Amino acid sequence: MLYGGVETGGTWCVCAVGSGPEEIVESAQFHTTCPEETLARIVAFFAAGPAVEALGIGSFGPVDVDRSSPTWGYVTTTPKPGWQHVSVASVVAERLGVPVAFDTDVNAAALGEHRWGTGQGASSLFYLTVGTGIGGGLLIDGRPRHGLVHPEMGHIRVPRDSDPDRADFRGICPVHGDCWEGVASGPAIAERCGSRPEELPETHPIWRIEAAYLALGILSVVLIASPERVVVGGGVMDHPSLLEMIREQLKELLGGYLETPALADEIGSYVVAPALGDRAGVLGAIALAQTVEV
Amino acid sequence: MLYGGVETGGTWCVCAVGSGPEEIVESAQFHTTCPEETLARIVAFFAAGPAVEALGIGSFGPVDVDRSSPTWGYVTTTPKPGWQHVSVASVVAERLGVPVAFDTDVNAAALGEHRWGTGQGASSLFYLTVGTGIGGGLLIDGRPRHGLVHPEMGHIRVPRDSDPDRADFRGICPVHGDCWEGVASGPAIAERCGSRPEELPETHPIWRIEAAYLALGILSVVLIASPERVVVGGGVMDHPSLLEMIREQLKELLGGYLETPALADEIGSYVVAPALGDRAGVLGAIALAQTVEV
Repeated sequence: MLYGGVETGGTWCVCAVGSGPEEIVESAQFHTTCPEETLARIVAFFAAGPAVEALGIGSFGPVDVDRSSPTWGYVTTTPKPGWQHVSVASVVAERLGVPVAFDTDVNAAALGEHRWGTGQGASSLFYLTVGTGIGGGLLIDGRPRHGLVHPEMGHIRVPRDSDPDRADFRGICPVHGDCWEGVASGPAIAERCGSRPEELPETHPIWRIEAAYLALGILSVVLIASPERVVVGGGVMDHPSLLEMIREQLKELLGGYLETPALADEIGSYVVAPALGDRAGVLGAIALAQTVEV
Repeated sequence: MLYGGVETGGTWCVCAVGSGPEEIVESAQFHTTCPEETLARIVAFFAAGPAVEALGIGSFGPVDVDRSSPTWGYVTTTPKPGWQHVSVASVVAERLGVPVAFDTDVNAAALGEHRWGTGQGASSLFYLTVGTGIGGGLLIDGRPRHGLVHPEMGHIRVPRDSDPDRADFRGICPVHGDCWEGVASGPAIAERCGSRPEELPETHPIWRIEAAYLALGILSVVLIASPERVVVGGGVMDHPSLLEMIREQLKELLGGYLETPALADEIGSYVVAPALGDRAGVLGAIALAQTVEV
């Protein structure tokens, strides 16, 4: 059986038809432009391809994931121009005539890693992406966490670094300034250092600061939601030693308070890189589609 | 049917027999001293009273809540003298010959408020207590959250206040210094101000700082776990205007980013005081006992 997956990111939109990582029969990738054009391209892709049982959409947010809400499947208060209060899921469902499941891009990625990646076997999973923004997805009992809204953890606050040369950097989040995303996303690094993260050398002091910021936010998620695995991806994580620095800082922040091997000697298999890479989101959207009762 | 509830707090141990807030047939309260004496008093209380179907224990932590673990029902790495790596649940279960359910004191309190208090009708609930320490319980789909361990949110980090007169206060947590509990518990207020919280006047500047600290931590829980209700109790919350100040600060920290009435006009029914007061823990332990399959 074939399923459709769509990941609408802030920059790219990825579509695929298939049933898992090794069973993708078609895919496409294009820029996320205005809603009309983007939705039209999504619909055109699936209309031209093989029939799918159901479609999963993982979208940048905030979104409305409450199935009983009149604005279910909308992108809501996003800062992305043109996308405020835009219906996504219903438009795609109606034009294609297939059932649609809808969630955040990061909850979808968490599902993808849980099903086929480094999250296998964990009943709860935290998926963090550090790139243009900071986003976190959370699975509890294998299901994406919703509730009042859905996880929006990029906007928690973490202590600002105390490096005297740099503590004057006040963050770049247009809403909150120095929230987690405002101080530790890729653009925050670029703003602070005057170079894109991928251009900064291994020896640049920003990496220790970045690791500290990421460890502080992960600490909050670990102590609040108690996930059984933490998967950290996104463009900023391409920096080779960053993941290991995060692990070390996280252990230091915990200070041995919780005597759990996962937070000590075995942290290397607790805080891990994604196995699906860039494909986690769209594969997770396929996993999401597979949860639809048709 | 009668159930037993035990709340073992850092200072007090409370025991009750009953089936709900209006159906308590016996209760007792004594100091939590050394483990031998405290467990003996718990056993003696229930042995002398009417038979119970099952017993629930909500304990100060960290504890082991993993039913498949050889140290299930233990208090583990607590700083409380004499209580490190102490078996609680199995000892009580064996001596009394009744099935025992075991969780953290704050998960139990969350259950109590969910069942009989201000948490009714919410499928997810965050219970925060601010007193001798800071502890958070979390229910997801009505069940206490476990996972890698259990929520231990008193030890997340929040930005330190920038009040120039007071920013030199470095926190009192013996393990982490300036974690949430280290800067915002009752003893932290006392250490900083030289007076116990209940002796500080309404006009003291600490209350605005305290509200900011509590709002910062609650913000993290809201954005990470997305609870449908937030219940804030504990001795420090006896300060009359603190709850309303927390609500205002929380709205300010969110900056309108999530357009949810609960985080705007309706925050007064989202962030609420507990209805069960000091009894939330022991009543929650009874609710916990009622989940045991006998």
